[in-house]
Amino acid sequence: MTEHDATNRASTRRDFLGKTALTATAALATTSMLASSGCSGPMKRLSGSKGGLIDTGDVVLLQGDSITDAGRNRKNEDRANDRSALGGGYAFLIAAGLLAAQRDPELRIYNRGISGHKVFQLADRWDKDCLALKPDVVSILIGVNDIWHKLDGRYDGTIKIYERDYRALLERTRKELPGVKLVVCEPFVLRCGAVNDKWFPDFDGYRAAARTVATAFDAVFVPFQSMFDKATKDTPPAYWAGDGVHPTIAGAQLMAQTWLDTVCQA
Amino acid sequence: MTEHDATNRASTRRDFLGKTALTATAALATTSMLASSGCSGPMKRLSGSKGGLIDTGDVVLLQGDSITDAGRNRKNEDRANDRSALGGGYAFLIAAGLLAAQRDPELRIYNRGISGHKVFQLADRWDKDCLALKPDVVSILIGVNDIWHKLDGRYDGTIKIYERDYRALLERTRKELPGVKLVVCEPFVLRCGAVNDKWFPDFDGYRAAARTVATAFDAVFVPFQSMFDKATKDTPPAYWAGDGVHPTIAGAQLMAQTWLDTVCQA
Repeated sequence: MTEHDATNRASTRRDFLGKTALTATAALATTSMLASSGCSGPMKRLSGSKGGLIDTGDVVLLQGDSITDAGRNRKNEDRANDRSALGGGYAFLIAAGLLAAQRDPELRIYNRGISGHKVFQLADRWDKDCLALKPDVVSILIGVNDIWHKLDGRYDGTIKIYERDYRALLERTRKELPGVKLVVCEPFVLRCGAVNDKWFPDFDGYRAAARTVATAFDAVFVPFQSMFDKATKDTPPAYWAGDGVHPTIAGAQLMAQTWLDTVCQA
Repeated sequence: MTEHDATNRASTRRDFLGKTALTATAALATTSMLASSGCSGPMKRLSGSKGGLIDTGDVVLLQGDSITDAGRNRKNEDRANDRSALGGGYAFLIAAGLLAAQRDPELRIYNRGISGHKVFQLADRWDKDCLALKPDVVSILIGVNDIWHKLDGRYDGTIKIYERDYRALLERTRKELPGVKLVVCEPFVLRCGAVNDKWFPDFDGYRAAARTVATAFDAVFVPFQSMFDKATKDTPPAYWAGDGVHPTIAGAQLMAQTWLDTVCQA
């Protein structure tokens, strides 16, 4: 994050000093929360003791395609922290983890992922499904359909178009929401189900483009592909995503934990 | 757990030696999983390094009332580890946590909670909704309706009847499934919404009865009430359960983490 961005962030915070005090309290709560997470085993000590990118009272928006969507109830999409509106995937699990750890009654989390979408389709609905919510944090996971639909013959995009559209989307987001904190999630696939050799090496190009865009916009980058590559060393790919694209419950949980780790240490 | 029970457990394990070897692998995976869980902050080191009560290949059944049910899709209830069949509450979050941490393709998790149920109603459907699944682990959260429906004038049970019925249910479970590992979850309420002074001191009696039953049957006891009592020291009760009975997403996550902590250290 640049100094300029940090200043913007501070200026957009509602009651900045109040927030700082609350964040300290939240950090203590987070600590006790983390001390009680999951099955047993030694835990490594993480550096830092704050909520990272997430400040008290933030509006957090999770955006993307079917992996984010995960069957969410769109009728309730205007309700923050709503169980059905968050779907049954990593977005719900991130919300559960954040809300329990941060203990912040003002924290508001929305899911606006839509199945089948590519970058240009996010752009088409960005006014309504991003800017109108005035989010403090925008997390995006997009890219798998940009290649999948091309392989299917339903789309004629390229890696270049993906990167160009992605840059334009973040440019517009920064312009409209100067203090926004951006999170770019790495597109990923697992070698099973619908994912075969035809996906490569193109897919690696889409991943690299997402990383380039993240760097260019000082966004936090969540490395989902390397996370799954590591996970498949001892567990079959289908355990994490049956068709190679859509995560199982286990895969979604792994994503949520990696997202929380990365974002809360940023 | 008594020596007798431990022997029973071992005798019911499918391929006991195979499991032990796999458990060691799972423990390593669990360790790496836990190292990456949630927002930042120092983490305490937990003793032990195994999956606790959960063995490789276990069938885990979560039973109870609406808190367990949490809108699950009953049409899919025979599908293990199914997103919709697990509902949107602590059962789903436990499943996600366990599946990601244990990395066990044979682990099967079911939710069979039904809204509004009291102990005797669990007994009525126990053949179908517990014994038929041949679970290795049975976790039960029941009791809030035993008092709530009495306060409403819809039921004439007492603490004594609750304890008697609960004992009979576990007696039957142990008889039919000699090696079963039992988890008794503490009924809880938060002082807000539908929960007023009329609930006390009776509610404390139901909690105490659940603990007595847990001890009598060597069950792992998950202390949800003390967990929520601690959580409400710095956060309003409604943050964890709007009506004082049904957990929010944050409340469900807190429950799942406490359940995993308790069960995986047992």
